[in-house]
Amino acid sequence: MKALVYHGPGARAWEEVPDPAITAPTDIVMRVDAVTICGTDLHILKGDVPEVVPGTILGHEACGTVVETGSSVSTLREGDRVLASCITSCGRCAACREGRYGLCTGGGGWILGHLIDGVQAEYARIPFGDTSAYRIPATLTDEQVLFLADIMPTAYEVGVIAGRLRPGDAVAVVGAGPIGLAAVLSAELYTPRKVIVLDPDQGRVDRALAHGASDGITDTGAAARDRVLALTDGRGVDLAIEAVGAPETFELCTDIVRPGGHVANVGVHGKPATLHLERLWIKGVTITTGLVDTSTTPTLMRLIEARKLDPSVFATHRFALSEAMDAYDAFADAKTSGAFKVVLEGAAHEQLVAVGAGGGAQART
Amino acid sequence: MKALVYHGPGARAWEEVPDPAITAPTDIVMRVDAVTICGTDLHILKGDVPEVVPGTILGHEACGTVVETGSSVSTLREGDRVLASCITSCGRCAACREGRYGLCTGGGGWILGHLIDGVQAEYARIPFGDTSAYRIPATLTDEQVLFLADIMPTAYEVGVIAGRLRPGDAVAVVGAGPIGLAAVLSAELYTPRKVIVLDPDQGRVDRALAHGASDGITDTGAAARDRVLALTDGRGVDLAIEAVGAPETFELCTDIVRPGGHVANVGVHGKPATLHLERLWIKGVTITTGLVDTSTTPTLMRLIEARKLDPSVFATHRFALSEAMDAYDAFADAKTSGAFKVVLEGAAHEQLVAVGAGGGAQART
Amino acid sequence: MKALVYHGPGARAWEEVPDPAITAPTDIVMRVDAVTICGTDLHILKGDVPEVVPGTILGHEACGTVVETGSSVSTLREGDRVLASCITSCGRCAACREGRYGLCTGGGGWILGHLIDGVQAEYARIPFGDTSAYRIPATLTDEQVLFLADIMPTAYEVGVIAGRLRPGDAVAVVGAGPIGLAAVLSAELYTPRKVIVLDPDQGRVDRALAHGASDGITDTGAAARDRVLALTDGRGVDLAIEAVGAPETFELCTDIVRPGGHVANVGVHGKPATLHLERLWIKGVTITTGLVDTSTTPTLMRLIEARKLDPSVFATHRFALSEAMDAYDAFADAKTSGAFKVVLEGAAHEQLVAVGAGGGAQART
Amino acid sequence: MKALVYHGPGARAWEEVPDPAITAPTDIVMRVDAVTICGTDLHILKGDVPEVVPGTILGHEACGTVVETGSSVSTLREGDRVLASCITSCGRCAACREGRYGLCTGGGGWILGHLIDGVQAEYARIPFGDTSAYRIPATLTDEQVLFLADIMPTAYEVGVIAGRLRPGDAVAVVGAGPIGLAAVLSAELYTPRKVIVLDPDQGRVDRALAHGASDGITDTGAAARDRVLALTDGRGVDLAIEAVGAPETFELCTDIVRPGGHVANVGVHGKPATLHLERLWIKGVTITTGLVDTSTTPTLMRLIEARKLDPSVFATHRFALSEAMDAYDAFADAKTSGAFKVVLEGAAHEQLVAVGAGGGAQART
Repeated sequence: MKALVYHGPGARAWEEVPDPAITAPTDIVMRVDAVTICGTDLHILKGDVPEVVPGTILGHEACGTVVETGSSVSTLREGDRVLASCITSCGRCAACREGRYGLCTGGGGWILGHLIDGVQAEYARIPFGDTSAYRIPATLTDEQVLFLADIMPTAYEVGVIAGRLRPGDAVAVVGAGPIGLAAVLSAELYTPRKVIVLDPDQGRVDRALAHGASDGITDTGAAARDRVLALTDGRGVDLAIEAVGAPETFELCTDIVRPGGHVANVGVHGKPATLHLERLWIKGVTITTGLVDTSTTPTLMRLIEARKLDPSVFATHRFALSEAMDAYDAFADAKTSGAFKVVLEGAAHEQLVAVGAGGGAQART
Repeated sequence: MKALVYHGPGARAWEEVPDPAITAPTDIVMRVDAVTICGTDLHILKGDVPEVVPGTILGHEACGTVVETGSSVSTLREGDRVLASCITSCGRCAACREGRYGLCTGGGGWILGHLIDGVQAEYARIPFGDTSAYRIPATLTDEQVLFLADIMPTAYEVGVIAGRLRPGDAVAVVGAGPIGLAAVLSAELYTPRKVIVLDPDQGRVDRALAHGASDGITDTGAAARDRVLALTDGRGVDLAIEAVGAPETFELCTDIVRPGGHVANVGVHGKPATLHLERLWIKGVTITTGLVDTSTTPTLMRLIEARKLDPSVFATHRFALSEAMDAYDAFADAKTSGAFKVVLEGAAHEQLVAVGAGGGAQART
Repeated sequence: MKALVYHGPGARAWEEVPDPAITAPTDIVMRVDAVTICGTDLHILKGDVPEVVPGTILGHEACGTVVETGSSVSTLREGDRVLASCITSCGRCAACREGRYGLCTGGGGWILGHLIDGVQAEYARIPFGDTSAYRIPATLTDEQVLFLADIMPTAYEVGVIAGRLRPGDAVAVVGAGPIGLAAVLSAELYTPRKVIVLDPDQGRVDRALAHGASDGITDTGAAARDRVLALTDGRGVDLAIEAVGAPETFELCTDIVRPGGHVANVGVHGKPATLHLERLWIKGVTITTGLVDTSTTPTLMRLIEARKLDPSVFATHRFALSEAMDAYDAFADAKTSGAFKVVLEGAAHEQLVAVGAGGGAQART
Repeated sequence: MKALVYHGPGARAWEEVPDPAITAPTDIVMRVDAVTICGTDLHILKGDVPEVVPGTILGHEACGTVVETGSSVSTLREGDRVLASCITSCGRCAACREGRYGLCTGGGGWILGHLIDGVQAEYARIPFGDTSAYRIPATLTDEQVLFLADIMPTAYEVGVIAGRLRPGDAVAVVGAGPIGLAAVLSAELYTPRKVIVLDPDQGRVDRALAHGASDGITDTGAAARDRVLALTDGRGVDLAIEAVGAPETFELCTDIVRPGGHVANVGVHGKPATLHLERLWIKGVTITTGLVDTSTTPTLMRLIEARKLDPSVFATHRFALSEAMDAYDAFADAKTSGAFKVVLEGAAHEQLVAVGAGGGAQART
């Protein structure tokens, strides 16, 4: 089969590799029908994630169709359409038994496209299929659920739920990239009175405002803090969600949260931040961090079915899976391409849309 | 009356001052029967708390007897024995209505011996008496409840409850001073499997071990971390309580907490700490800070009545209230005096113990 | 002044009574600007609530303007527009200190129009004004907030919050009267996937569907149960809210809740129900009951300000306060009048709308 | 092998049956080393649990040694000592993924000795071994952990945790049989101020008092209620745990719980109870029911290791496994035998104690 393979910093190729096969009784193999690219994949390509060894197939967010199941797989069978989550859960370790799949110590956690081959490929092996892949309801398209593989549950669990958002709260989302927009969408599930989005990129702020944010701020630093305080009677927000992954934005979150409020860190950080305990010790704040567990995947899928949530708004550009190299280019150079999230569609889609669809990037209306 | 008055950095005196009087219908005035000195009082005397203006009577932890009540006070009357909490609660603001008295915006919070005159005096005015003073059961002595004025609820609420301790957990208490020991005593209410105490002072560690800690560590830094990991199967503790107030001990807490665990900061910090988000973002930790609310005071009082908790173990030295200057000396020079917490006893006690008691510090058996 | 006075079962009069006066330093007196009638008032008039003694002014839901304050009232002053809540909170007892104002043991709880004179009058005394009346933002009309005096927080706290509703849940609301509709509106704050309303009255079901319910059922008993199960894949709802107050509807709730789900009883019951423990012991259900605390009043007010909630939809008929007798007739004979909730407007409103408004019931468009 | 087989109401035999074998890749087979008899087994023998078909091996609480594992079992291997829990968890269904193993819809729940052959046998097949059997630490004996198979987690999860017990609370345990005593032991983990035990049998009350209960009541009905109220300042208990399974005792629980308190039903009921909603609707109570999940088994095992919990106090009589018929007689006729819980020891124990041990019941010192 063909797959997108990492060949060391700066080097990737769409190339022929061996087909995946069942290696444990709990495995499934699926044909990939739709897959997306994560900001983390770009980090890997820069060499920032050294545990990814050259030769690894990238990708951890896909929809597919089961083509083979291990002998102990009991809840899925050939032909089932599934969402392969970014988090693999062994279902047996203490962490998994408590619903903390992201902390799995039994061989799961974030392994796809990281410690084992990922899903930017024509086929993929998904370990622990019963507890790591989610059947897609017949009424939903791949694109409707694709973003449940990572960014939606990440923003919902690590941002909104960990941050204990309640109806009537004011929430600030610092960073309006895909994770930030996912935080806006999932915050709305709790009917906050305000969703304030902060990002220096006016286009990203506008997108967030179009999808439910109440206020947008493109200032940074002290000016940003002052604007948030002005919007919250000088008190600060009940919840500040960090969706960037930088010391400055984290520190901004601790400045704009009200006494007694929450800071939920969702961003992936490469450097330490300064924690101003000389001010914060008395402020009664709660700061949370974490990798997603994806335990809310079934809930989010039901909300999509009920038309209460629509993550398909992320997809701005679509490619054939075989155009994966172009898709990376578009996603990596968002400034030029205007790409927010790209969708790579597998052979099944290509057959469906047949000859008439043309190819290459399509701006989504 | 006489009181212990702050006269600027390094200067204090036990001197004649005007008697306190009711100034609002919600006030009470009490005769002070027992009072203690807090590490924070020593900070004030060093000039570290600039909002304390010279001329202020110090002290925020006392038992007393009500001698006068404002016109709207309805739950207390003359002659009632009460505990005056370090936190004053207006009972009316949004924070107080949610039980967050420490965040009171209606004139309360930590004000005694800070923004208004305190309780190291023969008499003291307690604002919002109905919601800031707690009647002492007849079966309990002043000394049994005195430490509910601050350190016990501080350790219990800001350390143990905020840290969501559960039966069977392993907890580390970093710092074995009075707050650290209070954390040990209150952690035991939840039956952890281990209470690991860390402090370079062997005597303090021994005291904690004598009162229920399971393991003591006098190492610091990486050695301390390694020992904690060794005691917890390499995983780290479920809850790390910071009871010192220094960047190093805070950072140690984030190193010894298990993935998915809690760090509860109780220490009062004067400097920022480094938050290693490059490691912590994925670790799924929750960090909490806060001033005590003292909302658990009634619960803790009931536990003392039921003989399930005995905070009188803190008191190592007793003085007459009129010996307040000596008491400060002993508390400030704990190395020499061996004092852990001192109790200053008011006139009522002095009458009770009469002439025979002698005076000065008494080593508690 | 004039007031609506209860004169024993079946007897009420709009008559001259003495003006209320401050009797405690914590009291306020307000001019009543808008007031409504509760189903409970009709129960009182039937003699079902024997602790209401003849001569009592009825009513526990009103907006007004403060005209006098007791000496210790600190957060309100003359001229403030306030919402007088159905629950009076002393702010001092253990229950109030934990936010359980409905369980107040310090002289509060439900007392207005019950144990003391109520608010269906030109003026009313509100005890413990600081903790029992809520300032109305200038941007909101009386009618927008009036239903925060009882039915909205009742449905929200006793139904939705006690029932631990989460995004993506299916909720059933049994009973589509005012409380049932309030449950629908407040459930939506948590974005359930389904809000199933059950009521034999098609008109009430239609009203609920118009305001956000997803499914309506007019069947009762086993047929109702079967329809709910059919709508929830045979499992039952995550939360069933009882909003009637009858044994049959309560038992229906325990039949339609899923294993592991919640039943939140909001209805006022006069008779026992049968609890089928022979089936329920293994089902893992949680059943909650309770009087409202009104602790969420500030939150609900903020949601109205933010245009996220609009309780003014309850008001179908408006009267002048002086037409209170007619308003009772209309509300008591809802079949004929079509009244859902009536609003009685005080003199301030009458002056505002002046001569041109005519009088009597006005169907709300 | 030999096993205790149910042959219809009133009929049981210790007889030769086929050895169990692996039938699914997730199965394990274990040699039974220690097993106990549950009150539920007696109910089955009376014919009260009709879904148990004649020919079924009884028993759902055992320790054993793994002798064979299915191909997908990854966390256990031959020779491991394990606790086989009364609850089997598939680890894959929505309920198991949320930690609600007792509500498993994937083939688990309570099945051992119920829907499939149980563990009162020389060998037993345990389905879903990875998620249904718990490795026993080398430092602990079988008898120390045996009661974690059912009664300890049942009392802890369904009584204490569902009942949200907090330090300082007063708790009543209605019924002082094995489950009631387990409720006493597990309540103590939260340091309540009072543990009041109610049972008409003075011997059972005395046993509870010997193991940590603070107060014992042998009265029933109104007299019992009055005594509980007298012990709690007339308010009632914070938590009432029903550990009998009868309408009267359940109704007593709703009478002795304080306003705002919890009733946790642990008893297995065969008949409906009356729920006095005419009194309870306003009382703000929470009533919970449920089958155990056994999700706390690892926590309880750690507490035993740490010497913070000792469930071996349940075992009053020991038998060889081959004496199973005698053990049933002793347990069923507790009045005569004095048996509280019996332990049946398998061949491994018999070899260990060798010839010298004699046989038959041994009163535990």
